[in-house]
Amino acid sequence: MIGVDVGGSKIAAALVDPQGGLSGVHTHRTDVSSPEATLNSIASTVQEVIRQTGVPPSNLRGVGLGIPGLVDPQRGLGIASVNLQWENVEVVQELEKRLELPCAIENDVKAAALGEAHFGAGKGVQSLVFLNIGTGVAAALVIDGKVFRGERGMAGEIGHAVVDINGPVCKCGGKGCLEAVVAGPAIVARAAQKAVAYPQSQILQLLQSGQKVTSQDVYEAAHLGDFAALETVHEVSRFLAIAIQFISLAYDPQRVILGGGVATSSPYFEDYLMDEIRKLADESWVFRHLVHPGFIQVTSLGNQIAILGAAALIP
Amino acid sequence: MIGVDVGGSKIAAALVDPQGGLSGVHTHRTDVSSPEATLNSIASTVQEVIRQTGVPPSNLRGVGLGIPGLVDPQRGLGIASVNLQWENVEVVQELEKRLELPCAIENDVKAAALGEAHFGAGKGVQSLVFLNIGTGVAAALVIDGKVFRGERGMAGEIGHAVVDINGPVCKCGGKGCLEAVVAGPAIVARAAQKAVAYPQSQILQLLQSGQKVTSQDVYEAAHLGDFAALETVHEVSRFLAIAIQFISLAYDPQRVILGGGVATSSPYFEDYLMDEIRKLADESWVFRHLVHPGFIQVTSLGNQIAILGAAALIP
Repeated sequence: MIGVDVGGSKIAAALVDPQGGLSGVHTHRTDVSSPEATLNSIASTVQEVIRQTGVPPSNLRGVGLGIPGLVDPQRGLGIASVNLQWENVEVVQELEKRLELPCAIENDVKAAALGEAHFGAGKGVQSLVFLNIGTGVAAALVIDGKVFRGERGMAGEIGHAVVDINGPVCKCGGKGCLEAVVAGPAIVARAAQKAVAYPQSQILQLLQSGQKVTSQDVYEAAHLGDFAALETVHEVSRFLAIAIQFISLAYDPQRVILGGGVATSSPYFEDYLMDEIRKLADESWVFRHLVHPGFIQVTSLGNQIAILGAAALIP
Repeated sequence: MIGVDVGGSKIAAALVDPQGGLSGVHTHRTDVSSPEATLNSIASTVQEVIRQTGVPPSNLRGVGLGIPGLVDPQRGLGIASVNLQWENVEVVQELEKRLELPCAIENDVKAAALGEAHFGAGKGVQSLVFLNIGTGVAAALVIDGKVFRGERGMAGEIGHAVVDINGPVCKCGGKGCLEAVVAGPAIVARAAQKAVAYPQSQILQLLQSGQKVTSQDVYEAAHLGDFAALETVHEVSRFLAIAIQFISLAYDPQRVILGGGVATSSPYFEDYLMDEIRKLADESWVFRHLVHPGFIQVTSLGNQIAILGAAALIP
């Protein structure tokens, strides 16, 4: 099958074998000038993968797509996507017309969770939560190989749950939402704000040099002992740990797997987070009951998880 | 069927008809001197209901029991209950021996959620969250008439999720757990602490007179304009609203139903809470998408919900 990761800036697609091996990986800029144009750029990306791999379309079981935003997998609808500027787009119908292959869609984080269940740390696990920490933040629960969607497909959208009542304002309008505290841009903004008080901060130097600063830079600086970065990483890890605790108590899953740019780009992310998880578990015997070794893991699939998850939509 | 609400201080049981009508309600002090003694006091409470209603045991489909703490409904085990001082007690086997009737057990809050689905505001609803706010705090999700238990039966134990990193220490050892902020004793403790700064506070007068102060008293005082009580009720309602938001985003249920002593004892509880829910929804469009009229309700079943929920365990 072919897996397609549809992002707001780029589309990535590849042929995925049953063991989760990728071939013919191809990326393409996302044309968001109109839904029509976006669908065309998706179709041409898929066609390029088919061309590069030379796989006969008759041998393909189908094309799975992970899409940012709210989708209706059963009706094949892209209901609402801020990144793609979509509203009730007939994604599956339109792509099947263009590709002459069966297509399936799911929200990108829910698809990634399915990818973990099929190809990653969730193999052989009855229930898992995948928590994506990137530009956006959302979780998805998979039970017995099925995504838990809730009543309106919004189950797991904890990026917009308040974790810090005194926290920064979120894109959604809320105050102190998880996403406004632990997403990539939020980490950078927090570090930049703190760096003002530390004239020697590496973060300040990066910012003043006009470079684009990422969460990876902040973790790296923290590791090197930069005060502004260290404060940032401690605070962010603490709120993230609290959110993981909440979602673990809500779902009681067998495993929690972390992915997304923030979680996978820095080798130090996991250490700082696990310190805070340990503190919470040391304090509370209820949480300690859940947090066995291996309960919380960073995905081993890196950024391939989006393509793998999309491919996992094809049965 | 007979429903039994097994509490740490008293056992309440009644005959429940298929429409959720109760008869022969009987309560009995819980003897917690030993598991054996507790099982005996449960059995004699049930026998008293049978005697009072005169129902022939052959007409009874069974006895359902809601039990505080961790239970294994399939094996009929009371795994751990702090209130009952139970550890791996063969509840079903022992009670079936004593009563010669089929018995079934479930965690009390999970049973209450099932009760709402069968007899209350969850009738005809595909998925609901029941949030119990009493001496303890916990939630339970029911989907298609089935309790969602999670991997270890701990799904919904959000009483021990941190909502205020600067909050009071919880019984579990955690800091700022939901239960340490919004449970009955936590509300009273917060009001008492604030009342010190308000010599005219009614709360202070109640405390000084040696009376037992309840969360109901705090809500009543707030309604009458008592400053200490008002501050308390505003803060508590805000943290409770945040927890309801989190659990709503995690589960995306069709309805959230609030029960337990704190939620049902004061007519003002709902008003103060809904003010804070509205504020969160006004701020965040994501939460606004979930909070339609009737999404959040206080149970109409009062404290009968525990018995009704237990009865709902019998198919």
